[in-house]
Amino acid sequence: MKNRFQAKTVEFIAVGSELLTPYFLETNSLFISEKLQELGWQLSYKTVVSDQLEELKQVLRIAWKRSWLILVSGGLGPTDDDRTRQAVAEVLRVRLVFNRKILDNIRQRFESRGLKMTPSNRRQAYVIEGAEVLENPNGTAPGLWLQKRNRVMVLLPGPPSELKPMVENLVLPRLRKFGEVRVLRSVIRITGAGESMVEDLIKPVYRHLPSGLRLITLASPADVQIRLEMPVRSVRPEVEEKAFHRVKTRIVSLLGQLVYSAEGQPLEQVVGEQLRASGWTLACAESCSGGLLANRITSIPGSSDYFLEGVVTYSNRSKTLELGVPEELIADKGAVSEEVARAMAEGMRKKSGADFALSTTGIAGPGGGSQAKPVGLVYVALAFPGGSIVSRNLFRGSREQVKFQATQKALDMLRLKLLEMKKEACS
Amino acid sequence: MKNRFQAKTVEFIAVGSELLTPYFLETNSLFISEKLQELGWQLSYKTVVSDQLEELKQVLRIAWKRSWLILVSGGLGPTDDDRTRQAVAEVLRVRLVFNRKILDNIRQRFESRGLKMTPSNRRQAYVIEGAEVLENPNGTAPGLWLQKRNRVMVLLPGPPSELKPMVENLVLPRLRKFGEVRVLRSVIRITGAGESMVEDLIKPVYRHLPSGLRLITLASPADVQIRLEMPVRSVRPEVEEKAFHRVKTRIVSLLGQLVYSAEGQPLEQVVGEQLRASGWTLACAESCSGGLLANRITSIPGSSDYFLEGVVTYSNRSKTLELGVPEELIADKGAVSEEVARAMAEGMRKKSGADFALSTTGIAGPGGGSQAKPVGLVYVALAFPGGSIVSRNLFRGSREQVKFQATQKALDMLRLKLLEMKKEACS
Repeated sequence: MKNRFQAKTVEFIAVGSELLTPYFLETNSLFISEKLQELGWQLSYKTVVSDQLEELKQVLRIAWKRSWLILVSGGLGPTDDDRTRQAVAEVLRVRLVFNRKILDNIRQRFESRGLKMTPSNRRQAYVIEGAEVLENPNGTAPGLWLQKRNRVMVLLPGPPSELKPMVENLVLPRLRKFGEVRVLRSVIRITGAGESMVEDLIKPVYRHLPSGLRLITLASPADVQIRLEMPVRSVRPEVEEKAFHRVKTRIVSLLGQLVYSAEGQPLEQVVGEQLRASGWTLACAESCSGGLLANRITSIPGSSDYFLEGVVTYSNRSKTLELGVPEELIADKGAVSEEVARAMAEGMRKKSGADFALSTTGIAGPGGGSQAKPVGLVYVALAFPGGSIVSRNLFRGSREQVKFQATQKALDMLRLKLLEMKKEACS
Repeated sequence: MKNRFQAKTVEFIAVGSELLTPYFLETNSLFISEKLQELGWQLSYKTVVSDQLEELKQVLRIAWKRSWLILVSGGLGPTDDDRTRQAVAEVLRVRLVFNRKILDNIRQRFESRGLKMTPSNRRQAYVIEGAEVLENPNGTAPGLWLQKRNRVMVLLPGPPSELKPMVENLVLPRLRKFGEVRVLRSVIRITGAGESMVEDLIKPVYRHLPSGLRLITLASPADVQIRLEMPVRSVRPEVEEKAFHRVKTRIVSLLGQLVYSAEGQPLEQVVGEQLRASGWTLACAESCSGGLLANRITSIPGSSDYFLEGVVTYSNRSKTLELGVPEELIADKGAVSEEVARAMAEGMRKKSGADFALSTTGIAGPGGGSQAKPVGLVYVALAFPGGSIVSRNLFRGSREQVKFQATQKALDMLRLKLLEMKKEACS
């Protein structure tokens, strides 16, 4: 069952001076490492190098010495700055040969759009001798697959829209032949507890982790992810699968309702599915979250089936006119108060005719805070058939982070209420 | 005026196995390259390497050979996986020595929070012999500055919240002594034209670019940035400054009203400043952009001064009840139509009492499109004192991209209208 190459080194090289500036983030490597994971492989090195021939050759030389699989992206275009082909040929001491078919493909590509091929595209028709051409239906730069002395080097175009389908359709099937390790994988998502609380709660599982299972915790404000990964290596995979699922089930049961998804879905999708399943509808009235809550809800395709409307009532006047929040209440308690949050949610529910309405009011910052009502103070309310609840929160972080946490809290209040109502209905 | 080191190689190494997975994006290098730019320097290599001692040593050895300045982040923590100090010591053949002061600092840090230092933190008190300690007020891992044989290696903690202030306050001042090049910099932002149109329009400036000026164009849906950079090298900097500003002014004048900011600001900020300056107020009624427009407007601190309210009218009923869009109009023309977009904006303006109201209605996708009304069809309307305008758009891309382009178009219509009204008022 063991495969020959899995233990050996795999690396990724991104070519392009722009990737060394503050303006471009190299993201192809994330996609590549994700795809390699499907095979059970990991990257050992990622390198970003400029377009300079000598620097590029140096990086390729080092890689050729230490790695059995080298994935290179970028530098295959038609301009003078595109030197990957040349650098590889010089490092491996092979020739570049002209390939008529590639040139014809490029010319056709231009002509089909009513354009004329530029002379510089001719460069792209040179391939490394002995390399297999990987066709690129999404651009002019073909990829190259080079196998030599038990090593593999793959040259890929830099633009993600060209690289991704090429890796998916042409590179992965070829790599699979070198031996694939199936990996079991799960993402458990949690809100309503911080990273350290989550880790405390799941401590009991650490004692019985099956060998080979990796558990990674990722935390951001108002969201914790637990990622589980386990390669299937034995001759009895069902035993390993069982062990993996036991850990997953144990974690989910230790965390209980803190878990909003055991399948890696975002909270707005989970809530959307709850609403869709129950046939209930939703509306929201936002002050401090400023439209982000509606934006998250409507980021789910088909959300128009259950989301009726939202309002962003930034001014006190609009809180009164839109939602019927009494002027005196705002004057008395302040716009940022439990009472106003509740009145907003109840007013929104009434006027929209939705079954549920969420509201937020708070101080997103950086300005506007006071001793009594500091930046980060946010009231979140939920009005439902038969009542309403309000939560008081003190969020930390930037304006964007406070806004996000407010919407996460709102969606989670709805999720928990929908769970509770379902339980009641079923008991 | 020339400095000794500027031409030599600078590189960055990020240490950490998690940075080789699909879940973590290495972003410290963006900050580092931005800061180096302030000195007029550029990165030649970025490497991400795992926690494995041998792999880490190999990467350090290569860097020490080819670069005069090596910035390393990560691997300074208290756990067994933190091996940067050890690897550097072995590669440079220097000793690790115990530093009592660091240990005292760490202990104090724990005690001030009522916690006890863990024994593993003792590791962090070992420093490379001959290295200068860079204090870390934001964490337990101190940085190290090592100067040896005309080379500099700087070890930095991995968390951005610790690395950034350390670079800013302790590393940059030290690097500045090696000779700094002042760099002139501008970011011109454009919407309403694609990258190729922008490049066509500014072609005349390419002929007269001052030597040393770099012009980079960055494009994303509905947004183009032109970045200008020029190191000041001569003994008469005012001459270079003049040449730089001539290019910038020329580009801005060639592009005219397509430019929404010559200072790199986002569109929602530009529009916010226009509204603030004029004393006018804004409201918005969103269908397909689903709250993103309000969210962008309210991402600007202090936006509550001019933004009165927003509604997200996803259902037809809410379009009628909230905005007074006649039911027959929706039945007759469809919710996605010029007429409904206009009625939404006018209805919103009326009900909110705002001076301006924006509206969007369209098909964000991926579902819901038809031959007559395909995915990406979006009507955007602006109601203003004395009238209203509607634009019909066919946007490409994902649901998120369609939503973004709709909001960009809306904000830009308002920007242009405010410009026009200002001109009329002043003429």
